[in-house]
Amino acid sequence: MRTIEWKNGIVTTIDQTKLPTEVLLLKISSCKELAEAIKTMQIRGAPLLGAAAAYGLALTAYHSGASHKEQLLKELNASAQLLKQTRPTAVNLFWSIDRILKRATKTVGNVETVAQTVVAEAEKIAAEDVEMNRKIGEHGSSLLNEGDTILTHCNAGSLATVDYGTALGVIRTAWKSGKEIKVVATETRPLLQGARLTTYELLRDGIPVTLITDSMVGYIMEKKMVDNVVVGADRIVKDAVVNKIGTYAIAVLAHTHNIPFYVAAPKSTFDLNRMAKDVVIEERKAEEVTQFAGVKTTPRNVAVFNPAFDMTPLKYVTAIICEVGVLSPRTSSMHTLRAHDYFP
Amino acid sequence: MRTIEWKNGIVTTIDQTKLPTEVLLLKISSCKELAEAIKTMQIRGAPLLGAAAAYGLALTAYHSGASHKEQLLKELNASAQLLKQTRPTAVNLFWSIDRILKRATKTVGNVETVAQTVVAEAEKIAAEDVEMNRKIGEHGSSLLNEGDTILTHCNAGSLATVDYGTALGVIRTAWKSGKEIKVVATETRPLLQGARLTTYELLRDGIPVTLITDSMVGYIMEKKMVDNVVVGADRIVKDAVVNKIGTYAIAVLAHTHNIPFYVAAPKSTFDLNRMAKDVVIEERKAEEVTQFAGVKTTPRNVAVFNPAFDMTPLKYVTAIICEVGVLSPRTSSMHTLRAHDYFP
Repeated sequence: MRTIEWKNGIVTTIDQTKLPTEVLLLKISSCKELAEAIKTMQIRGAPLLGAAAAYGLALTAYHSGASHKEQLLKELNASAQLLKQTRPTAVNLFWSIDRILKRATKTVGNVETVAQTVVAEAEKIAAEDVEMNRKIGEHGSSLLNEGDTILTHCNAGSLATVDYGTALGVIRTAWKSGKEIKVVATETRPLLQGARLTTYELLRDGIPVTLITDSMVGYIMEKKMVDNVVVGADRIVKDAVVNKIGTYAIAVLAHTHNIPFYVAAPKSTFDLNRMAKDVVIEERKAEEVTQFAGVKTTPRNVAVFNPAFDMTPLKYVTAIICEVGVLSPRTSSMHTLRAHDYFP
Repeated sequence: MRTIEWKNGIVTTIDQTKLPTEVLLLKISSCKELAEAIKTMQIRGAPLLGAAAAYGLALTAYHSGASHKEQLLKELNASAQLLKQTRPTAVNLFWSIDRILKRATKTVGNVETVAQTVVAEAEKIAAEDVEMNRKIGEHGSSLLNEGDTILTHCNAGSLATVDYGTALGVIRTAWKSGKEIKVVATETRPLLQGARLTTYELLRDGIPVTLITDSMVGYIMEKKMVDNVVVGADRIVKDAVVNKIGTYAIAVLAHTHNIPFYVAAPKSTFDLNRMAKDVVIEERKAEEVTQFAGVKTTPRNVAVFNPAFDMTPLKYVTAIICEVGVLSPRTSSMHTLRAHDYFP
C-alpha cells in the first residue's frame, strides 16, 4: 500500500498519528501544510521524509504564480528552507531537497518547464524509493533463515517509506519467499511507532508479530527468543548509524548475546562526510513522554529529556543492507569495524 | 510518608494505580480485599508486599470468629494460600507469610493471644522494614559522590516499602547529607512506576529528577550523563538479581559503559537456595501493553509478551546494598562474580 501519492497538485498521505485507530487520509496542497505535517509526525520515516520533501517542492512549483524562472527558483528556495527546518536528523529530507533544487536550477526553459521538471523529479524520487526498497528486501531476505524470529524497532515499513519498507521490506520479502519467520516489534516509546504502525502493517500482511515494550529486549534476547535484529536508519555517517532512540541499546544487547544486528536503508540515507558527533539529534517536546493521547501520566512540572534518535557505532552493526547489496565488514571482528569496512 | 498503616483492624494504604493524578486512600478490612489490591497492583513493591501480606494475615486473625487456636491457624493458612497466589516473583511476600505462620503456630495460648501475636508480628515486620531502609540508605549513600547523576528504574521508594525506600532510600540519605545529586528516572513501561511514582516521590522531597523513556538509557550513558545506577530487587538468588523488567538491559548497558550498578534491598529479598532458573517470572495481561493510560494504542488482537521481571546475572552487579552493609564482590573482575563473592 503506497503511503504517499501525487495527483494534479494534491499530495495524499495517511495521517500516521491517527493509526491504527483511524485511517485518515490527508489531502495537502501547499508546501507549508506539508512541512507542518512533517513537524507533527503525521508524515514520518526517513525515506518517506525524502519523498515528502520532494513533493513539498513539487507543490510549490505546481501552484506557483511566478512570471519567470528566477522567481520560481526563489520560491523553491524559500520552500526548501521551510522544509529543512522541520526535522534535523533524517538525512533523506536534505538529500532530496538538494536533488530537486539542483535539477530545477539546471533546467533550461520557462516557468512551466521548470515546474514540470520539479514535479517529474519528485515523482522519480518516490518511484525510486519503492524500487530501492524492493531491492533491499531481496538482498536482505537471504540473511534470514527459516524459523527465525526477527526483532525490529520503531517502524521501518511501508509507512516509513513510499511503499514496501526497508527493515519490514526485508521481512516481507523473506515471508513472501516462503520462509516461516516471526517478528517481535518493540512498542517504541514515546510515540509508539512499533505498537501502532509496525504491528498494523504486519498483521495486514498476515506475518506473525508479537509486541513487547522497549524494556523487554534484554530479557527476550537472554531467553534466546530472538535470532536477528533488523532496523532502519535515519542517517548513516562515517562511524555510526543514527536511528530511532533505543536502537543503540538494542545493538549493545544484540552484541552481548551474539545476535546479528542488521541495518536496512537506501543509499540516500548515507552521509559519509559526517561523523556521529556532527549529527544534530532532535529533542522533542516533554509532552510526548508525560502524556499519552491527552492523558497525563506524570506529576506536574517534571523535567523530561526527550531525544528522538541515538547513534549506534558501526562496531555493533553486522551488516548494512542497501539497494546495491549487503555491505558487510571486511573484518570479522565486531570490535574493529570502521566505515571503510563497509564503504571501500 | 508511610505507605501502609494498621489501626484497629483496618489497613490503610495508598492506591498506587491512581498516583500521581489522585491520592486515594484504601481502607482494607479483610485479607481477601488485600490480596485483590496486590493482584491489581494498587499495592506493589517487593518490601511493601512483605509488610502487606503480614497485615493481610493480621486482618484474618483480628476479625476471626474462631473458637479455638487450631481453627484460627486453619484460617491463617487459608489466607496464606490466597496471598501466595497473588504474585509469584517478589520473595518478601512469601518470607513474611512464613514468618507470621511460624510465629502463630509456636504461640501458646487461646485464640485472642494468637491473634494479638499475629498483629504484633505484622507491626514488627513493618517497623523493621522502615528501620532496614534507613540502614540501607546510610550504607548506600557513601557510594554516591557530590555531583553524581543516579539512574533508577521502576520505583524502589517509600511507595515500594513501608516507608523511606531502598534505592530511593539511598538517594534520600545522600541528598539529606548535603550531596548535590540528581536523579534520572526511567518511566518503566508498561505500568509507568517510574513516571508516576518515582518522579512523584522525588519532586515531593525536592530532589532534582529528570524523566526519560526506558529506550533512552543507552543514549544517556553513552553521553556520560549517568554516574551510577541504583535499583531495588524483587528477589536475589544465588546467581542473579530478579527485578522489574528492563533492569537486565540497564545492567548490560552500565557494564558496557563502565558505570557502577548497585542493587539496594533488605535481606528479606535474599533467596539464596534458588538459582535464576528456579524463579517464576510473572507474565501479566496484554492490556498493560496494548493500552496506554487507558487508551488503546494497538491494532485489535495483536499478540503480546508481557513478563513483569527479568534476571540480572551477578557479574553485572557492582555491589548489593542491604541493612548489614555493602556486599561487594571479593574479586574486582566483573566477569567472574558469583553469589559467594557477595555472601561468603
